[in-house]
Amino acid sequence: MKTKKKVKKSPPKKKQMRVSGSTVKRLSKYYRTLNELIKEDTDTISSEELAKLEGVTSAQIRKDFSFFGNFGRRGLGYNTQELKTHIAGILGLNRHWNVAIVGAGNIGSALIDYAEFKAHGFHIKLVFDNDPAKIGKMLKSLIVKNIDTIESECQRENIEIAIMAIPAQAAQAVAERINKAGVKGILNFAPKRLQLPNHVVIRQENTAMELETLSYFIMNQKDYLK
Amino acid sequence: MKTKKKVKKSPPKKKQMRVSGSTVKRLSKYYRTLNELIKEDTDTISSEELAKLEGVTSAQIRKDFSFFGNFGRRGLGYNTQELKTHIAGILGLNRHWNVAIVGAGNIGSALIDYAEFKAHGFHIKLVFDNDPAKIGKMLKSLIVKNIDTIESECQRENIEIAIMAIPAQAAQAVAERINKAGVKGILNFAPKRLQLPNHVVIRQENTAMELETLSYFIMNQKDYLK
Repeated sequence: MKTKKKVKKSPPKKKQMRVSGSTVKRLSKYYRTLNELIKEDTDTISSEELAKLEGVTSAQIRKDFSFFGNFGRRGLGYNTQELKTHIAGILGLNRHWNVAIVGAGNIGSALIDYAEFKAHGFHIKLVFDNDPAKIGKMLKSLIVKNIDTIESECQRENIEIAIMAIPAQAAQAVAERINKAGVKGILNFAPKRLQLPNHVVIRQENTAMELETLSYFIMNQKDYLK
Repeated sequence: MKTKKKVKKSPPKKKQMRVSGSTVKRLSKYYRTLNELIKEDTDTISSEELAKLEGVTSAQIRKDFSFFGNFGRRGLGYNTQELKTHIAGILGLNRHWNVAIVGAGNIGSALIDYAEFKAHGFHIKLVFDNDPAKIGKMLKSLIVKNIDTIESECQRENIEIAIMAIPAQAAQAVAERINKAGVKGILNFAPKRLQLPNHVVIRQENTAMELETLSYFIMNQKDYLK
C-alpha cells in the first residue's frame, strides 16, 4: 500500500521588493528633517505631519518605511530620535567612508570642504587631476594628486567611493581605472553614462535634470506638493 | 403633481494622480537616453529595453508614462523620436527659460557655462553676489551683480528660475527677495529648507544626499538595478 507523502509546507514567501533610488533619497530627506525636529525638541511626529514638511503624501512615507520594518506604533506617531537612528543605520551614516574626488575644477573644489559630507561620515581623502598646473598644488586642505597614480593611491587610502567631476569624454576611461582600484561606488557629475561591471554602484548627478524637474512643476503647479 | 427631476449624470471622474518629483526626474533621464539612441539611429525601443538601460523595471517605465497619456502601441515599442518630442513637451524643454545664479562661489561658477543648461532651454542671464571683491567683475561670460539689486535686475531680465548657491544662513532672506521679484522656481543648493508662498516651486539640491543613496546601494547591492 502506498503511503501518502506528507507535503512539507514551505513558509510563506516574503515578497522581495526592490528599494528604489527615489525611496532612498527620500530617506535622506526625512533624516535631515528629523535632525531639525530633534533640535527643536520635537519628540514625536505623525506620518501626516512629516508628509506636510516633506511635500509628499503620508501614504508615501508609510510605504517608504515599510521596506525597512516597523518604525512606529499606529496612532502614536514616530519617536523622532529612534526614527533618526533607524534611518541612519539604513543609509550607512553610522560608519566611515573614504572618498576621493576626481577632477580639481569648480565642482571638485566646491565639494572638498563641503561640511555636510564629514558630518554624515563621508571623508574626502584624495583629489586627482591630470592638469600639470594643478598637480602637486594645495587645493583647500589637500594636495592635488596626479591622476596617473589613481589606482595605487586609492588602494593605499582604502577609497570606497569616488566622486567624478571631469569632462564627459574622459569619464569612461577614468571610471575603469577607479574600478580596478577597488572602489565600490561612483557619484558621476560627468554627463556621460558609465559602463562598468555590476558590482560597482553608479549614481548619476545632473543639475540640468534638476532644472527640468523644476520647470515641470512651474508649468504643472497642481502636481507640486510643498 | 411633482415631476421627477432628471438627475444629470456627471462624467466618470478621471482619477487625479499627482506626478512625483521622482517620476519627473526619471523622464529627464529617459529623455537623455532617447537622445543617445536617436544619435545611434535606433528608431524604436521596448519598455523592457529602455528599462535595462535605465536601471529600473519596465513596469516603472510604463507607470511613469501612464501619467501623461498613451506613448506607444502595445507590442510595437516606442518610436524614439516621437517619445523624445513628447517628453520634451512635458518637461518644458521646447521653450526658453531665463535663469539667474545667486552666489558667485565654486558652485555658481561651475554652473554659469554648464553646456547642458543652454542645450535644454535654460539660459543663465544674471549672476549675483554680496562680496564687494566680486561685484562688477567678470565671471566667465557675465558681470557679477550686487545682490542688493536682485529685485529690479530679475524683473528687468524676466527671470523665472533662480539657482541659489549661497551659505545656509543667508538663504531664507535671499529667497524672500527672489520671490518678490516674481521668480517662479528656485533650485536651492544651500542646505536649508526654504519657507515661501505656495506658488513658488522649490527643489532642494544636496550632494550629500546623493552620497547617502550611493552608500545605501553599496551596502545593499541586491536593491541596485544598473
